[in-house]
Amino acid sequence: MIVVMKPRADEAAVNQVVSVIEANGMYAHLSAGKEVTIIGVVGDKTKLDKRFLQAIPGVEKIVNITESYKLANISFHPEPTKIALANTSIGPENLTIMAGPCAVESEEQIMEAARGVKAAGATMLRGGAFKPRTSPYSFQGLEEEGLKLMQMAGKETGLNTICEVTSLKALEIAVNYVDMIQIGARNMQNFELLKEVGHAGIPVMLKRGLAATIDEWLNAAEYIMANGNEQVCLCERGIRTFETATRNTLDLAAVCVLKEKTHLPVIVDPSHASGVRRYVAPLSKAAVACGADGLMVEVHPNPPCALSDGQQSLDLPEFEQFMKEIKTFTILAGRVF
Amino acid sequence: MIVVMKPRADEAAVNQVVSVIEANGMYAHLSAGKEVTIIGVVGDKTKLDKRFLQAIPGVEKIVNITESYKLANISFHPEPTKIALANTSIGPENLTIMAGPCAVESEEQIMEAARGVKAAGATMLRGGAFKPRTSPYSFQGLEEEGLKLMQMAGKETGLNTICEVTSLKALEIAVNYVDMIQIGARNMQNFELLKEVGHAGIPVMLKRGLAATIDEWLNAAEYIMANGNEQVCLCERGIRTFETATRNTLDLAAVCVLKEKTHLPVIVDPSHASGVRRYVAPLSKAAVACGADGLMVEVHPNPPCALSDGQQSLDLPEFEQFMKEIKTFTILAGRVF
Amino acid sequence: MIVVMKPRADEAAVNQVVSVIEANGMYAHLSAGKEVTIIGVVGDKTKLDKRFLQAIPGVEKIVNITESYKLANISFHPEPTKIALANTSIGPENLTIMAGPCAVESEEQIMEAARGVKAAGATMLRGGAFKPRTSPYSFQGLEEEGLKLMQMAGKETGLNTICEVTSLKALEIAVNYVDMIQIGARNMQNFELLKEVGHAGIPVMLKRGLAATIDEWLNAAEYIMANGNEQVCLCERGIRTFETATRNTLDLAAVCVLKEKTHLPVIVDPSHASGVRRYVAPLSKAAVACGADGLMVEVHPNPPCALSDGQQSLDLPEFEQFMKEIKTFTILAGRVF
Amino acid sequence: MIVVMKPRADEAAVNQVVSVIEANGMYAHLSAGKEVTIIGVVGDKTKLDKRFLQAIPGVEKIVNITESYKLANISFHPEPTKIALANTSIGPENLTIMAGPCAVESEEQIMEAARGVKAAGATMLRGGAFKPRTSPYSFQGLEEEGLKLMQMAGKETGLNTICEVTSLKALEIAVNYVDMIQIGARNMQNFELLKEVGHAGIPVMLKRGLAATIDEWLNAAEYIMANGNEQVCLCERGIRTFETATRNTLDLAAVCVLKEKTHLPVIVDPSHASGVRRYVAPLSKAAVACGADGLMVEVHPNPPCALSDGQQSLDLPEFEQFMKEIKTFTILAGRVF
Repeated sequence: MIVVMKPRADEAAVNQVVSVIEANGMYAHLSAGKEVTIIGVVGDKTKLDKRFLQAIPGVEKIVNITESYKLANISFHPEPTKIALANTSIGPENLTIMAGPCAVESEEQIMEAARGVKAAGATMLRGGAFKPRTSPYSFQGLEEEGLKLMQMAGKETGLNTICEVTSLKALEIAVNYVDMIQIGARNMQNFELLKEVGHAGIPVMLKRGLAATIDEWLNAAEYIMANGNEQVCLCERGIRTFETATRNTLDLAAVCVLKEKTHLPVIVDPSHASGVRRYVAPLSKAAVACGADGLMVEVHPNPPCALSDGQQSLDLPEFEQFMKEIKTFTILAGRVF
Repeated sequence: MIVVMKPRADEAAVNQVVSVIEANGMYAHLSAGKEVTIIGVVGDKTKLDKRFLQAIPGVEKIVNITESYKLANISFHPEPTKIALANTSIGPENLTIMAGPCAVESEEQIMEAARGVKAAGATMLRGGAFKPRTSPYSFQGLEEEGLKLMQMAGKETGLNTICEVTSLKALEIAVNYVDMIQIGARNMQNFELLKEVGHAGIPVMLKRGLAATIDEWLNAAEYIMANGNEQVCLCERGIRTFETATRNTLDLAAVCVLKEKTHLPVIVDPSHASGVRRYVAPLSKAAVACGADGLMVEVHPNPPCALSDGQQSLDLPEFEQFMKEIKTFTILAGRVF
Repeated sequence: MIVVMKPRADEAAVNQVVSVIEANGMYAHLSAGKEVTIIGVVGDKTKLDKRFLQAIPGVEKIVNITESYKLANISFHPEPTKIALANTSIGPENLTIMAGPCAVESEEQIMEAARGVKAAGATMLRGGAFKPRTSPYSFQGLEEEGLKLMQMAGKETGLNTICEVTSLKALEIAVNYVDMIQIGARNMQNFELLKEVGHAGIPVMLKRGLAATIDEWLNAAEYIMANGNEQVCLCERGIRTFETATRNTLDLAAVCVLKEKTHLPVIVDPSHASGVRRYVAPLSKAAVACGADGLMVEVHPNPPCALSDGQQSLDLPEFEQFMKEIKTFTILAGRVF
Repeated sequence: MIVVMKPRADEAAVNQVVSVIEANGMYAHLSAGKEVTIIGVVGDKTKLDKRFLQAIPGVEKIVNITESYKLANISFHPEPTKIALANTSIGPENLTIMAGPCAVESEEQIMEAARGVKAAGATMLRGGAFKPRTSPYSFQGLEEEGLKLMQMAGKETGLNTICEVTSLKALEIAVNYVDMIQIGARNMQNFELLKEVGHAGIPVMLKRGLAATIDEWLNAAEYIMANGNEQVCLCERGIRTFETATRNTLDLAAVCVLKEKTHLPVIVDPSHASGVRRYVAPLSKAAVACGADGLMVEVHPNPPCALSDGQQSLDLPEFEQFMKEIKTFTILAGRVF
């Protein structure tokens, strides 16, 4: 961390900054220039809040040199993380394909979806049992009943399963039925839930918040890891911008940035990002081409009848075609499904 | 709701839309134009997901005519809501001033802050005991100990108190100590927590999410109200944009929009919105001038030593001056503190 | 400027940075810390592009300490600028009210508007003759004919006039007819036009671009000033965000930021920012309350028949009422119309 | 276009809307529902401003059914456009590679760049002679001298050339030296320049504005086409969002959207979008994978010495490697360089 003083900051102001730094067990390195004095901060900065220094009169700004996340940081863990599940793994060798309906609706629906995506080559089954919906009057999911159906579908097909949880209660139920849990965009900074996910120790996929910077996202992953769970992967699913032609704006450059900053695997969800089924295949190819470790794709046996997000779901023949098209890009990326 | 069909949609597509509408207990009103067929949907639409219709082939787009929130809607409740607390109320007659430190740090700090803001004319005491912080290594609040100190400070000064809760557990503790709770920006769409707040029945202030539209915000309020708690006020605290000169971009036009759409009181938080103490007074005057029902202002007895957000806190003499400047605008708005 | 080196940057990298700095006539001040080496750059930095240094291997980042604009900078010109027109002035003593139709449509329309806004107390007449419209098929303005009508209306009423120009040709015509020109949001970074406006020497109002940071905006003003024209005022008119309840998001905190960074007057345009006539009065009061030097308000004798932007225009009785409501806020701000 | 009336709009309001529609030579199709009256507008709507109708009391909203651009619209021109240059063409069969330095700096630099990118397989030479720079004190380009050097480099290597123009004057000069011109992001809505480009008849690449919606972008292309020039291609170069890890946010879904809405070729510029040379290759592969017709890539013989944007430029060996990596994706896309 570097503290840049204002041009007119006097010695007393500089001394105050130094004493705060030293009182927090760190060392201050002064550099008095003609225009301005700069103070380097050396030592363990995790205990000192940056804003604490910013509030001292005479301080112009604070520049961070090192990131606040440690466990998620590639500098301290250069090898890419591999999350091992019973029947597949997520990491540098695979291209994980999580496919399935937005919401579990019935035994018939989830079984048909599971068999179909398995046959086409998917490596995991996705399905929502707890749905965070904008309006309280929209369908909120089958909850535990949905999880049981997910488990049944996973057992029959041999697909590992992933399901979103939206509360501690949902988490406590979900760990009994599914292989991996998902924290959705709206809960990315629900820090209390992240801590519980840390304690739960189940593999987790953390989706990016609608307005979360990459730095905030990695700090959210750090909440889970600092509480004991290092089986974390990230999922880019679009950010909110002014453009309304797509539901969100898929930020594929975020995949490139993440690959430089973290060892955690990165999944891309083109279905939620675009909200349009016709864009799922081209955006998926693009995601694989720029380094993603996997894709999350909505597939529904009968999209026009889907209880949520039908407009963005592929049907089973479309998904079969999708898997054929993705295969070449997967090979080019040096990966296998 | 209006369903606009594509120019080339055939009769079968139109019939499919009509049958879905009727199967959901509503009535379809057809209007076949030269270019395009339009289908008006009449009846209780809360059960039917808009995206369900969007997924039918031949559908161009769905246009909402009425809002999805009902209890928060001014159309069904034209009188402005007034939230009555023990010693003050929030609503059309008052200008509520919630003042105090970002975080409760010690008995000495909160007592000094409470006495100071009370003397200057504040109507409520704010203070954080559960702090949602970007990094897991930052100060997270005193939790229950902090709430006890808030209660003590409230009792001595006669100020009603407000404190943020970040989980069901925090909520269950907080209702024993404070008069009102706050749901922060990061939890605005933590729907499970909103439902619990609905059941808890304690007055609540719901802050706007960093990237939440006004419509999503009112639907979040609807979650609380639909679960039994109508004592809700809203708090505009800035949205995330590309501009970095201020922490967030305060959207004061949102106050004007809310006054047309809802009967719930609207508070403005210029401290978190701007992140700069020098902008708190001018933005507060602006908020009152355009119709806000109150202000949430960070005040700390010793800002340079604040454990969080010192840079944006007023000290006590500054707050005293602030209250003098705000008084005239309050009178002009036909309100009292 | 400060150059922060990467943790592993070696001496050769540091020497390369130093030699580039010295080759550009500046002085490098080294500070070799334990973690990292920091290089302060002292001297005239206007000749050296920051990105030139960023490209050197071993450089982590460049931190600007001083702004790139000089003539617009309050540090070098602490007194607020006052733009003197024939019959009024724009600056710290006045609250400038620029009122009139979005577009000049006919002699009858502009004369009725001019007489009406004059009678109600406006200090300047606005009206568009060159309209930058999203679609090439929309009404593009009366051009020179419109300017003649503006001049006629200005003469009869004694109001100074302002009109947008969208090209060098339009500028060359406009200087013959109006007292002040406006550069619209879409041309804020039309640098060639800004240079020409610098040479033209006519007072100018520079609107903020839809996605322009405050820093970019002040640099755009610097283009005009560095080319010889210091009679510049700025106009905040809303920025583009994800929120669609208003046309743009009015950034009133920008007024506070500008008052700390520049001596140039700041006007606020609530009509274009919100796009809704009912929000014009509350947002105008808010703008005055937080320090604006003036307002630009759309007024049309017959809004439903306006050829552009009728939805956001006040009619004449509404504007009369508006001026009454604004008066108290103007007095409170220590200003006169 | 559909006019949706407010629930309480009376017959007089409906009649006013109808009479305005008919007075503009169109036909109004009424549909009086239980809740609300809807009025379909049939006929040539290019003469009627939507906002004109919006301002009529009783009107709730206007819904566009058809786009305002016609010449750029794929509905009226289903075949993809192919722009034929002397030595190459831009369109569905090729993958156009425009490579070269951000700015032309010297004969030596541009000749070395041209020879290098030609040898590696580029199909066009890019280079800036008129640079739109944020600060008036930054290097603004060699102007006509730079264009002469571009022409020389194009002749020697057989590469067709493209150069940005920023004013009518620059356009008039450029048409004498280069094969194609570029309108940059900051001038995307400089409508007067777009009209002149329409008259000039030279092939043009129109970059997306920093905060331009896809709809506004296509309307900007329509300005050029409606003024007589149909040799237009579009260039996605990132939009401005809250994320600062990359210079802009590359919106690759925009390529998918454009392919459904327009017949014009779409180029992607990963260099300006990301601002980081290491992200250029992965984002380029992604762009090709999702359907782009070409890439614009910054290449400089000596990036650390580049007078602008060195940080994002590839050097010649890096570009050679880049072309090898892109080749497979080009073949997969069914294209040739």
